Amino acid sequence: MTYPFETMLPADIERRSFEMIAQELDAQGVRLDEETDLIVRRVIHTTADFDYAQNLVFSPGAIEAGRAALSAGVPVVTDTQMARAGINKKSLARFGGETLCFMSDEDVAEAARANGTTRATACMDKACALKRPFIFAVGNAPTALIRLYELIGEGKLHPALIIGVPVGFVNVVESKELILKTDVPYIVARGRKGGSNVAAAIINALLYGLEGAR
Amino acid sequence: MTYPFETMLPADIERRSFEMIAQELDAQGVRLDEETDLIVRRVIHTTADFDYAQNLVFSPGAIEAGRAALSAGVPVVTDTQMARAGINKKSLARFGGETLCFMSDEDVAEAARANGTTRATACMDKACALKRPFIFAVGNAPTALIRLYELIGEGKLHPALIIGVPVGFVNVVESKELILKTDVPYIVARGRKGGSNVAAAIINALLYGLEGAR
Repeated sequence: MTYPFETMLPADIERRSFEMIAQELDAQGVRLDEETDLIVRRVIHTTADFDYAQNLVFSPGAIEAGRAALSAGVPVVTDTQMARAGINKKSLARFGGETLCFMSDEDVAEAARANGTTRATACMDKACALKRPFIFAVGNAPTALIRLYELIGEGKLHPALIIGVPVGFVNVVESKELILKTDVPYIVARGRKGGSNVAAAIINALLYGLEGAR
Repeated sequence: MTYPFETMLPADIERRSFEMIAQELDAQGVRLDEETDLIVRRVIHTTADFDYAQNLVFSPGAIEAGRAALSAGVPVVTDTQMARAGINKKSLARFGGETLCFMSDEDVAEAARANGTTRATACMDKACALKRPFIFAVGNAPTALIRLYELIGEGKLHPALIIGVPVGFVNVVESKELILKTDVPYIVARGRKGGSNVAAAIINALLYGLEGAR
């Protein structure tokens, strides 16, 4: 059987996709700087949603901080198993990094019950108690961002980078705006959009930027 | 500290979100029938992207077929570990179901190398060789949909349901149109949009519809 398909290797398909995205952004009059370009295009590649060219905001030096942390093997804490599954673990391991997600941990469920919080909140508390540097990749729970904001404000937590991209309709927009008020490095998708896939795509884009291969 | 947040339990946040989505769809003049409504709203809940009210197409009886298969414990085959991670396994297990993803299997990698195909293609061949009924939830690889189309055309495979929602820029639109030509039950996101999160959301929406709880 023959189809109207372009016959390409996966790596070529990805390169071609990134070219198409660049062309459409150009046609839309969107200008991105070299640093943010790879992140924004990978998120669009993951979602086919060009809104992210407008939504994504980067604190000054966020990409550099994220790459420095990843290259030093700083672990990535996610708020869903799905975001964790989407991160390229082989690439991460090349730098000695790993992914952590505490959402299914029994002690987290217990702490959430005891304190009347969401499990996502309890996860952030658990990460904080470990007193290690972390990158936080939050694609789902606004309460995770709210707790990060509180812990930072209390001087208890100093994240290497916060990726703040929960998706949704209730408290989501506001939780992201809180992160914009902090002085920690952040990459945030303003507005309602985001997701575990977007969180994973941003981590992967940082990793591939480090590898220099894509 | 106090914030401008609505204090709600997660279940209430979800209910409120679904109400907000219904209101916005109504304001946009979108009318959905009762069956498709829960699927479409859950996908919008997962993406905050109202384009899915236009993109999602259902073959006649697709939702009924999907629910019947899920309630009979038919396994769900995904083309990414991420889609697999996003499916509510507790809900699935209530009906005796499970998720399968062959993408990391060594025999799949070998078959792909030997046959010069993608691993996604080899995964579909592996599923076909098992000669069992399956629901296919494809959120990433157009080549998975192309291979499903071929296997169906050759009379080798009779999926209980195909969820065809890969995302991307090369061969994606065309691969989904192929599935629309088949006579198997399908739920497809026409166009470029989709993703592992969308595939998982559609399975979850079918499950929650069965549970009758949401």
